[in-house]
Amino acid sequence: MTGRTRQKEIRLNAFHMNAPGHSWAGLWTHPKDRCANYTDLDFWIELARIAERGKLDGIFLADVSGVYDVYAGTPDAALAAGAQIPSNDPSVLISAMAAATRDLGFGVTASVGYEQPYYLARRFSTLDHLTKGRVGWNIVTGYLESAARAIGDGGVREHDQRYDRADEFLELAYRLWEGSWEDGAAVRDKAGRVFVRPEKVHRITHHGTFFDLDAIHLSEPSPQRTPLLYQAGTSGRGREFAARHAECVFMNQSRAAVAEAAADIRRRAAAYGRHPEDLLVFVGATVIVAPAEAEARDKYEEYRSHLDTRGALALLSGWTGIDFSQYGPDDPVRYVKSNGMQSKIEAMTLRSPDRVWRVRDLADFGEVGGRGPFIVGTPSQVADELLTWVEAGADGFNLTRVVEPANLTDIVDLLVPELQDRGVYKTEYSPGPLREKLFGPGRARLSPRHPGHAFRHPGPTA
Amino acid sequence: MTGRTRQKEIRLNAFHMNAPGHSWAGLWTHPKDRCANYTDLDFWIELARIAERGKLDGIFLADVSGVYDVYAGTPDAALAAGAQIPSNDPSVLISAMAAATRDLGFGVTASVGYEQPYYLARRFSTLDHLTKGRVGWNIVTGYLESAARAIGDGGVREHDQRYDRADEFLELAYRLWEGSWEDGAAVRDKAGRVFVRPEKVHRITHHGTFFDLDAIHLSEPSPQRTPLLYQAGTSGRGREFAARHAECVFMNQSRAAVAEAAADIRRRAAAYGRHPEDLLVFVGATVIVAPAEAEARDKYEEYRSHLDTRGALALLSGWTGIDFSQYGPDDPVRYVKSNGMQSKIEAMTLRSPDRVWRVRDLADFGEVGGRGPFIVGTPSQVADELLTWVEAGADGFNLTRVVEPANLTDIVDLLVPELQDRGVYKTEYSPGPLREKLFGPGRARLSPRHPGHAFRHPGPTA
Repeated sequence: MTGRTRQKEIRLNAFHMNAPGHSWAGLWTHPKDRCANYTDLDFWIELARIAERGKLDGIFLADVSGVYDVYAGTPDAALAAGAQIPSNDPSVLISAMAAATRDLGFGVTASVGYEQPYYLARRFSTLDHLTKGRVGWNIVTGYLESAARAIGDGGVREHDQRYDRADEFLELAYRLWEGSWEDGAAVRDKAGRVFVRPEKVHRITHHGTFFDLDAIHLSEPSPQRTPLLYQAGTSGRGREFAARHAECVFMNQSRAAVAEAAADIRRRAAAYGRHPEDLLVFVGATVIVAPAEAEARDKYEEYRSHLDTRGALALLSGWTGIDFSQYGPDDPVRYVKSNGMQSKIEAMTLRSPDRVWRVRDLADFGEVGGRGPFIVGTPSQVADELLTWVEAGADGFNLTRVVEPANLTDIVDLLVPELQDRGVYKTEYSPGPLREKLFGPGRARLSPRHPGHAFRHPGPTA
Repeated sequence: MTGRTRQKEIRLNAFHMNAPGHSWAGLWTHPKDRCANYTDLDFWIELARIAERGKLDGIFLADVSGVYDVYAGTPDAALAAGAQIPSNDPSVLISAMAAATRDLGFGVTASVGYEQPYYLARRFSTLDHLTKGRVGWNIVTGYLESAARAIGDGGVREHDQRYDRADEFLELAYRLWEGSWEDGAAVRDKAGRVFVRPEKVHRITHHGTFFDLDAIHLSEPSPQRTPLLYQAGTSGRGREFAARHAECVFMNQSRAAVAEAAADIRRRAAAYGRHPEDLLVFVGATVIVAPAEAEARDKYEEYRSHLDTRGALALLSGWTGIDFSQYGPDDPVRYVKSNGMQSKIEAMTLRSPDRVWRVRDLADFGEVGGRGPFIVGTPSQVADELLTWVEAGADGFNLTRVVEPANLTDIVDLLVPELQDRGVYKTEYSPGPLREKLFGPGRARLSPRHPGHAFRHPGPTA
């Protein structure tokens, strides 16, 4: 509207996993919850349609390629609770949801720890083609010992070495996505009987520390070429990686910690020639909304009664590497150093250093669970609270799965109109690929300021 | 019908690839062809709907993870013709087609050469869940040097060693699919708050020649557990592999060679305790059908005029390892020993040993191209011809992509009713998963006679 200062637009993703339980163990037991139907395409197609009706930016799918077996040294607690196990491959879910939607984005988690850049790059190019440019890649380096042990990899590599490998992986992926095929290579000239101009396709050769490559990229350029890049890293090395590669950074921390980390990552990004606005910060948030506050509190308590405490501790044990089965529910937790990838507990205990946290608090359904903001209230109360996080540096939120799709439906029906009324949320999707929807017209591809852009082939005139 | 001997039912798959060109280079240039839209989900969803309207058993997606660069030592001819390059990942296509169909099966090619059993098993379990049991795996060992070179694998492994690795891969996959989770492990008991009974989930440990594994399978059992297993191997070692593992064997050979190979593989299968009827033989076939013979011939000539000869030779060079750019179009080809995985040329030249074949014949659009039967005619003529192959031991046909989806539409509208009238083709799909549709009631899972079945966990009573 003219004459009014344009408000910053809040971004929302639905944060899910191809599993019965994700961040909150046990909620699948709620009578309304349908996440136990995760093996059924109808569940996902309905979820995607609800998300698109609410003009969400995307569905963001987490993944781990191991089990949570730190707790008591077995995966039993996680299995019984359905806590991230069983877990299915997220990448093969996407095309069905893409066919049922037009604008919704899809964030797909894939690890650089156990894949070859050559194959991963092709899979993401394929997804980007099939979705017409609506795919993001959530880059993870892997933190579960069980995932490394699964394929005889002899334990999770040292943290910094993991990131060295990740940097080399990304460089190869950029070369395949950006450097192998020039624009206009795939001419599809039926009359001239030429599908590809071979002189515009370039072989990538690389002999590095972790990978060898000698090939052309198998896929022609997709709408975004490089998928939109998500990353969640809050350690020093993780921040450096995010500053260099990420376009969207995912954080689960206190408001003050988000403000500090967001500013620090943006500052580090400048060293790579990037601008602060080239990075969007998404904060993990649990939102329970109802027309009246009492109703929202009731809903919260009802959901909470379905939490699986052992499952929650199994997740915490996996995130931190600490076997919480050794402690009683009332044992105090003064300070927990995370294993470097997951700062959940660290952030949580640092957040309120004066309070004595107990093991039972860590396993509870609430902000104490260490998963970023936990907001229960009316649409207006939730919006107020979210805006304080935007003040602190957040651009958007990954909305954690609760009781679904009921909870997402509440968000779409109640919170989204409130945010729209406040002028901080889109009423229509912007056209174009996911990156363009988030960063504006002309931004379908990596920014020229992004380090990956340097791997673009200069073309015949250069 | 009572009182009439039940005819053997002919099986049909549409044989495709996630690429503009598949077996016949250049046909994408035909005005009616829409395969250049392979990046578009609508193309695939329409194809799946046509196939299901024709009650086809499945869409079978080939894949190679390299380029055809034997011809003149570069991928240029293949690129210009769009001959299997660009090529996208087939696995991520499936869920969109599955959501648009109910009974159609999906054959997905994946190589045991460059993947980890742990991840491949999970991807196929996920696909089997999402399709409600309609997925098959076409097991390939890889034959393109370019695919091995791409990831620094130092050349394609020796043929027999490739199969040793494949055997070990399959054993691990069986253990994950069949042995890690007992039936009834995932109880989904909301009232009792138990998703999985941990005592029914078993860790798989393996330290072998090619792979290490120490993990539970990440996916709960899918409708078929092990996907329907396809394999194309006609060498001695390939036949042994097929006899042990395959439920559907795919052949591209002469009628006599199919008869011999089918009988031999069924004989070898008996040594593994399997029955001859536990294996179905699919023959690769190109079919062009029209109401009148002249019309079919005209259509054939019209399609043929769009063939790309250099692209065809690029494919042949990749299949055989022989650089056909060294020879003129009229040079004779007396006998070509294939590289052990692709017996196309070998079979073709052996088929008519008295004729002098020339290089131009090998690149032509016709049976001389060495891709199994090539049938042009009226519905009645095509049916007659197909039945001679059934007499020789074929159970069904993989119908090669020609000009699509026009050609598949002709097959569905003209050939399928003819086959139905003759009582050799289903008028309705059978219920249940793909394996049950093909092998009959109660056969959703691997047969107890299949070697993979031995890896089933015996359960608590054993």
